Amino acid sequence: MNYPNGIRKTAAIRHGHSVPTKQSYGNRGMSLEEDINSTNEYYLETNQAIIHKKPTPIQIVKVHYPKRSAAMITEGYFRSKSTSDYNGIYKGKYIDFEAKETKNKTLFPLANIHEHQFEHMKSIIHHGGICFCIIRFAIYNETYLLEASNLIACWENMLNGGKKSIPYETLKQEGYLIPFKYQARVDYLKIIDQLYF
Amino acid sequence: MNYPNGIRKTAAIRHGHSVPTKQSYGNRGMSLEEDINSTNEYYLETNQAIIHKKPTPIQIVKVHYPKRSAAMITEGYFRSKSTSDYNGIYKGKYIDFEAKETKNKTLFPLANIHEHQFEHMKSIIHHGGICFCIIRFAIYNETYLLEASNLIACWENMLNGGKKSIPYETLKQEGYLIPFKYQARVDYLKIIDQLYF
Repeated sequence: MNYPNGIRKTAAIRHGHSVPTKQSYGNRGMSLEEDINSTNEYYLETNQAIIHKKPTPIQIVKVHYPKRSAAMITEGYFRSKSTSDYNGIYKGKYIDFEAKETKNKTLFPLANIHEHQFEHMKSIIHHGGICFCIIRFAIYNETYLLEASNLIACWENMLNGGKKSIPYETLKQEGYLIPFKYQARVDYLKIIDQLYF
Repeated sequence: MNYPNGIRKTAAIRHGHSVPTKQSYGNRGMSLEEDINSTNEYYLETNQAIIHKKPTPIQIVKVHYPKRSAAMITEGYFRSKSTSDYNGIYKGKYIDFEAKETKNKTLFPLANIHEHQFEHMKSIIHHGGICFCIIRFAIYNETYLLEASNLIACWENMLNGGKKSIPYETLKQEGYLIPFKYQARVDYLKIIDQLYF
């Protein structure tokens, strides 16, 4: 199997193809998105949960319909999401989360998440869903789960003149380090079990 | 506001813009997808439920990055979905459904739904979610809610040599006619309330 570029590789993983590279077997070289997608596939295969990444919304402007082959989009633009990246069902509960990776050493900038996404998170909590954010500090190769309520508090604090970021130390204290496992590379349901079930 | 073609109009509705045309005020001229999207917007605005249509998955092959303007996709292809069209949360419950419109007068062909979508529905039920299909007979302007369990039974019957479609009369008996309302054009949560709450 040959994946000529990043987009294709990601698209392949997103659509359920396995990517048998050396990188699959270590804890390095995979993006947070790839790790979460492979974790979700594992959850699906082992019948633990149904959680999918939502496709990137694309505004389609021009489509070419060649004879005897598939319709081709020849002009399209990326659109911003009004919701979160991932949602699904776990133990009968609605699960909804966002995933963000930072190369920063000391903090996670709140600008990484848009206002309408915070509104979406509030709304999910209001309706009784489980909502959180998975944040990876790439430099430490550490991935944390931070509950949406916590993230919303930081954001509202920022709106009132407070910090525009979450310090790494705060995330270590208030977030939950997600264990790395061979099959569930970002085993976030382990944390969800501790918090909600 | 000017929507030059069907795709743009649909994309605009999908992303939450209102489309102030004459057609919005009657029970005709809107597709099932447009009606459901506007219903979902109404549910969201009135804080009843958070249900979104998933974006169409697109395989992106080539992207052009012009100076000083947005990245443009110059080669992309439509991909088939492995899940359903809509999902979200209502009264704390996970909701997941598919929507299909037929111009047929007497039956709904099961070929409209793919095998992996049936598998997805089974899995949703297994995990305790609410799963169904909204089916519109365009010719009668009637829209029905059919529970996934019912649809799966029809499909398994087909695999055992039974009918390849659901007769209109069966849908009338076993499905639930969804009321049309001015604001909630396909007020399916009314049926869900009767069935589950």
